[in-house]
Amino acid sequence: MSESDFLEHLRRSSKSTSTVPIPIGDDLAGLTLPGDDTILIGVDQVLEGVHFLSTTEPTLVGRKAANRNLSDCAAMACLPTAALVCVALRQSVTAGWLDRMMAGVRQALAEFNCELVGGDTGSWPNPTALSVTILGRSAGLVPVRRSGAKPGDKLFVTGSLGGSILGRHLSFVPRVSLARELASHFELHAMIDLSDGLSRDLPRICHASGVGAILDSEQIPIHADVSRLADERSPLEHALHDGEDYELLFAAPHCDHPAAVEIGRIVEGNGVRIDIDGEEKNLEPLGWEHSL
Amino acid sequence: MSESDFLEHLRRSSKSTSTVPIPIGDDLAGLTLPGDDTILIGVDQVLEGVHFLSTTEPTLVGRKAANRNLSDCAAMACLPTAALVCVALRQSVTAGWLDRMMAGVRQALAEFNCELVGGDTGSWPNPTALSVTILGRSAGLVPVRRSGAKPGDKLFVTGSLGGSILGRHLSFVPRVSLARELASHFELHAMIDLSDGLSRDLPRICHASGVGAILDSEQIPIHADVSRLADERSPLEHALHDGEDYELLFAAPHCDHPAAVEIGRIVEGNGVRIDIDGEEKNLEPLGWEHSL
Repeated sequence: MSESDFLEHLRRSSKSTSTVPIPIGDDLAGLTLPGDDTILIGVDQVLEGVHFLSTTEPTLVGRKAANRNLSDCAAMACLPTAALVCVALRQSVTAGWLDRMMAGVRQALAEFNCELVGGDTGSWPNPTALSVTILGRSAGLVPVRRSGAKPGDKLFVTGSLGGSILGRHLSFVPRVSLARELASHFELHAMIDLSDGLSRDLPRICHASGVGAILDSEQIPIHADVSRLADERSPLEHALHDGEDYELLFAAPHCDHPAAVEIGRIVEGNGVRIDIDGEEKNLEPLGWEHSL
Repeated sequence: MSESDFLEHLRRSSKSTSTVPIPIGDDLAGLTLPGDDTILIGVDQVLEGVHFLSTTEPTLVGRKAANRNLSDCAAMACLPTAALVCVALRQSVTAGWLDRMMAGVRQALAEFNCELVGGDTGSWPNPTALSVTILGRSAGLVPVRRSGAKPGDKLFVTGSLGGSILGRHLSFVPRVSLARELASHFELHAMIDLSDGLSRDLPRICHASGVGAILDSEQIPIHADVSRLADERSPLEHALHDGEDYELLFAAPHCDHPAAVEIGRIVEGNGVRIDIDGEEKNLEPLGWEHSL
């Protein structure tokens, strides 16, 4: 399959709408959004050998690439609106692989009424690199940033953590609807999605907000998957450091939503400590970080 | 250098503005644009070994990645507004390489007052894959699409073609200002930037517009670089097929702008023919195409 065949295929499945007057097939796609909206935009990549394997079902690869970005929309409580896919394909992959991967992207986007509006494809004699750019809109809610946490806020997560490597890192559901619901009903001061692990993502909120945090080890919800991981790390360590949970972590003065689990609080100062059996220890970030 | 060091470095150099209230450093960047604007968005990648070499000066790699996207803005006569960079870095590249590459991206964007608002970085044991997403706005001019060419239109290019491999593929200047000027003063029916070569990009206008085209071989401006390429292709063949000229090709009933060179006309039907010494031949697309 040539690149133009592939693009022609994409083009046929997209048509001009009032939101996307210029769909796939031109030099750029054109969008019109309500004038009062803030546009939110970001990009996130998945790399063969790092985030997925050459043997991973391509539909799941596409879903993951889209869902990581949709999860960033959740983290800011915005509505996903449009997405672009950029892929450098391993030369040896088949047209079927590409089709299934794109089907995964489309499925994930469709669940949030997010339109695929463009992309770029190329092939090369190396593993596949795939990135998705996402465009969201504030749609009536002020975007929740990382920087608004205040001493006295409580810390919440939206689900249990750890053990995502057993499969949830490919099959998670971005918390977009929940984020919108939470932001509509509660005063969220800061929010992030847990992609790199609680021990690495919570310091990002603290750093951006100029505050510290204390976690209560007994309140941190540990995912059942963790019990299936037999290694030297404790269940708590898995929940703190594993990453790719894609649950939301947020700071708010109050939240009694049934999906929100209180796990600690924001304090003056900086850094993150954790209360284990009544003793406070510094929490070192052991979550995932790319080294460059 | 860790990814967070790199992001912190980017963060420090970006600040909140009225157009970009949420700059680099959150889950997504936030932009506010005038309500009447159409937003134009696209993504384009450059791959080590395909579009640049491991020995290419990294500033030029960054500039090329940004300029290819800025050229897409030119092709639609929109104003570049914001950009994101996504990079999968070869593990062996140095922090200095990344710094210089990003400096190239920033320089290229700055020339068009286009802000860097986000990105994603990772490293992997493979060659570097780099993509730039660009966001433009119509800013008072209707975006010029590929699909509006009409029989009777004349075809124009904005500069001479061929031989870009000798260096211009890395150092070209996106024709953003010229595109805006042309679209302000003339009735442009269709436009594209010549990235893959006249013989491959002109059929894209024809296909999108449902028309054919006839080129006049004697009018096609051939770049002086072509004379430095000693191979079996004729100068005209280089101008038709080389690609990466990044000049604009457009269809208009009339244009007497000094930068516009008339090279042919739009006709009923489909396909592209070329008049060589009074004889019309079909023009086969030999320009660059990725095979997937």
